[in-house]
Amino acid sequence: MNSEICRTSFFLLTVALSGGESAAGLGSDFLRAEIQTYAPIVQKIFKYVVDGGYKNVTYDSLADFTDRFGSRLAGTRNLEDSIDFILEKSEELGLENVRGEDVQVPHWERGFEAAYLLSPRKTEIKILGLGHSIGTPPEGLTADVVVVDSFEELERLNSTNTDAIKGKILVFNEAYVWYGVTVEYRGRAAVEAGKYGAVATLVRSVAPFSINSPHTGSMNYAENVTKVPVACISIEAAEMLRRMVDRGSQVTIKLIMNAKEYGPETSRNVIAEIGGFSKPLEQVIISGHIDSWDVGQGAMDDGGGAFISWHSLIVLKNLGLRPRRTIRGILWTAEEWGYVGAKEYLNRHRSDLEKINFVMESDGGTFTPLGLEVAASDAAATIIQEILNLMGYINATQIKRYKSVGSDIELFINEGIPAASLLNDNERYFWFHHSEGDMMTVQNPQDMDKCTALWAAVAYVIADLKDPMPRR
Amino acid sequence: MNSEICRTSFFLLTVALSGGESAAGLGSDFLRAEIQTYAPIVQKIFKYVVDGGYKNVTYDSLADFTDRFGSRLAGTRNLEDSIDFILEKSEELGLENVRGEDVQVPHWERGFEAAYLLSPRKTEIKILGLGHSIGTPPEGLTADVVVVDSFEELERLNSTNTDAIKGKILVFNEAYVWYGVTVEYRGRAAVEAGKYGAVATLVRSVAPFSINSPHTGSMNYAENVTKVPVACISIEAAEMLRRMVDRGSQVTIKLIMNAKEYGPETSRNVIAEIGGFSKPLEQVIISGHIDSWDVGQGAMDDGGGAFISWHSLIVLKNLGLRPRRTIRGILWTAEEWGYVGAKEYLNRHRSDLEKINFVMESDGGTFTPLGLEVAASDAAATIIQEILNLMGYINATQIKRYKSVGSDIELFINEGIPAASLLNDNERYFWFHHSEGDMMTVQNPQDMDKCTALWAAVAYVIADLKDPMPRR
Repeated sequence: MNSEICRTSFFLLTVALSGGESAAGLGSDFLRAEIQTYAPIVQKIFKYVVDGGYKNVTYDSLADFTDRFGSRLAGTRNLEDSIDFILEKSEELGLENVRGEDVQVPHWERGFEAAYLLSPRKTEIKILGLGHSIGTPPEGLTADVVVVDSFEELERLNSTNTDAIKGKILVFNEAYVWYGVTVEYRGRAAVEAGKYGAVATLVRSVAPFSINSPHTGSMNYAENVTKVPVACISIEAAEMLRRMVDRGSQVTIKLIMNAKEYGPETSRNVIAEIGGFSKPLEQVIISGHIDSWDVGQGAMDDGGGAFISWHSLIVLKNLGLRPRRTIRGILWTAEEWGYVGAKEYLNRHRSDLEKINFVMESDGGTFTPLGLEVAASDAAATIIQEILNLMGYINATQIKRYKSVGSDIELFINEGIPAASLLNDNERYFWFHHSEGDMMTVQNPQDMDKCTALWAAVAYVIADLKDPMPRR
Repeated sequence: MNSEICRTSFFLLTVALSGGESAAGLGSDFLRAEIQTYAPIVQKIFKYVVDGGYKNVTYDSLADFTDRFGSRLAGTRNLEDSIDFILEKSEELGLENVRGEDVQVPHWERGFEAAYLLSPRKTEIKILGLGHSIGTPPEGLTADVVVVDSFEELERLNSTNTDAIKGKILVFNEAYVWYGVTVEYRGRAAVEAGKYGAVATLVRSVAPFSINSPHTGSMNYAENVTKVPVACISIEAAEMLRRMVDRGSQVTIKLIMNAKEYGPETSRNVIAEIGGFSKPLEQVIISGHIDSWDVGQGAMDDGGGAFISWHSLIVLKNLGLRPRRTIRGILWTAEEWGYVGAKEYLNRHRSDLEKINFVMESDGGTFTPLGLEVAASDAAATIIQEILNLMGYINATQIKRYKSVGSDIELFINEGIPAASLLNDNERYFWFHHSEGDMMTVQNPQDMDKCTALWAAVAYVIADLKDPMPRR
């Protein structure tokens, strides 16, 4: 059904348009006609993945993988073992150009860590140290607590008394607004604490809901600012400490963190492909990241995204669907350390960037898929909407447009490459994110099937369209 | 406004009815008239608690209490300290007949406990030992795992191979249906495990939702069945162990529990009253339990129920509202060990049972109040519905009827005493119940105000109605 007869060059047509008529307007009739020819192929993918022989495979294999390896912090042997496993399986399953590309990644381990409230009463406070945090002295450190709800409150407190923070454990009890905003507290807390002379800082977990669950994540130190240990505490604990301080109690905590930075290690971006039949040098990238934090199983962040990408390749391979362009699956390493794998990829493949037609990453949950989040020009978005109109079978026809989408692929978007992430019903994503709750229980086999089917279908159609996806 | 002129004897009237006419039918006009006279008093209570001088007091004082004492397991010094605190405050606030009544309660401590998955991979599995569980040997025990999803599966497994469970750690991965049904697994697991020769048992937490959160609770041993250690694991862990076993992996766990039973200790039921002005020997009881499990803060189970009961007394005292009958507030001890305080109360006060007009307990959350759950005769339920019709100001006019309601007060219901519990929007109650997440963050000041207002108003009206609440 890959007939070229019905297709025409949308890209050339829209370029030829004069100002009065919108690009989407005139072009979309031709575009629609071309894209409509893919309806039977999309149906074939859906039938196979959602109701046929591939039903439950994505979920079952992710469960096997995460049960086998657990969490996969970049820098650990465990991640490398899990990468070997994926490489071997990819070869076995007949994927093409299977390889790992070396990446130097940080190696940090949290070791033993604990916090004990000593006053006004004795109890343990659950913590999760943040990645790259320094440790405390081996015997721990004990200090009184100061609590602020915001950086502004911290400034005010320090401006009225420049000794207010000195020698203290600084607790941030910031309200959760949304992740992209509130995560600044996790990132900046250590620098702010160090700047004002705190001996350590504890940050309320960046999450909208909690069952006394701390969440880890990345943080930053700054040059010329004393480094202090930093960990997250639960929403419940942060609120409790705030109340205690507000009542005038002396609040004292003993903090022990054996966290330690080791030398860098070699990890790998995992690459496997379905080679294009007529334009093999042009690529559509589908991706997720294979590393995770060192808690839970990394089943959601980003086992789900990695596995729908990997299984999309296998599905297309099994169905004999080889598009014009190459579909390159990439499982990034060390995303959690700051897109380390993606940065290395970009450096290594800089001369190929022009050949990247479209880049996709799922790193925001693989719950019920609704469509795509898109960072692309109007013309590209129009094409993607037309493609999504084929996804009615699983009700995943929505498009949402953003300046940037995904995580690692932000780097590609900055290079002007059109991109998409998975739009899914991920309302509870940050309940589990970077916590012990990121386990297989959050995943659902039927939803994962739909995600894989959507992902495979979109990648295939884009990789097979006669003309490349228009850039900005 | 306590005019007797408008009121007539509903009880006598309904008794006089002949078969053809329903008790509620004829009586309700008179009843309505009597109850309607309380509308201004109910409004006064609402204005004071929800919008006036008592706004936020219930929440703030519960936060102070739970931050000060934390969890309050019966048998611990901590619970007794918290009881002393309530007794002192009750005296200070001018409540009447303030006293503690001694109760012998169990004393069990979990001590250090941990579980480690050794095969097919190494990771820690979070556990919470169950109350009264024996410990493992100090160095722990290590055994392979058998998983069943139900008692039926256990029977089948044992009937095909009587050695299947022997020497194993038996894991129950039962699905959550609803608490009252599923809790049987927590209660019976140790007996079933002991019966078939397991060395320990791990039970999936009885909860509908989890962020890898184990939940503790009570359990039973049986005479003539070998006692084995028992703990709960999270939903996530139970599902993972099931998957691992189903794949044919050898699953091995090392379990360490230093749990230990000590001799009984003396605790106290906490009693305080607003004495009745004309029928002081007749009582309406409002109650919650002051003990909690030894995790979280016991803020929800049952800090909320205890505090809306206690604050109801203080509200009535502050407003000068003294009803005909005595309102006796009781904060039960050792509810979590099986209604131990309530049983002792019943024994000690058996000769007074006839004088208990109505008994109320809130032990199912103090979220947005919706009305009352009632265990009572049709005639009593009709009266309660009429009273609830006064609660429109806070939209808490619903009645739901059950054979039994509350927890401790089940014992009173069995004696034929009409009873009510708080009907509230507690859909997430079992998400936090008996877990580390039972902290003040689950409570909301406005909801708690409404709960106290409703609770105080209902208790007052019932205690002041001319005739006693009809029994079954």
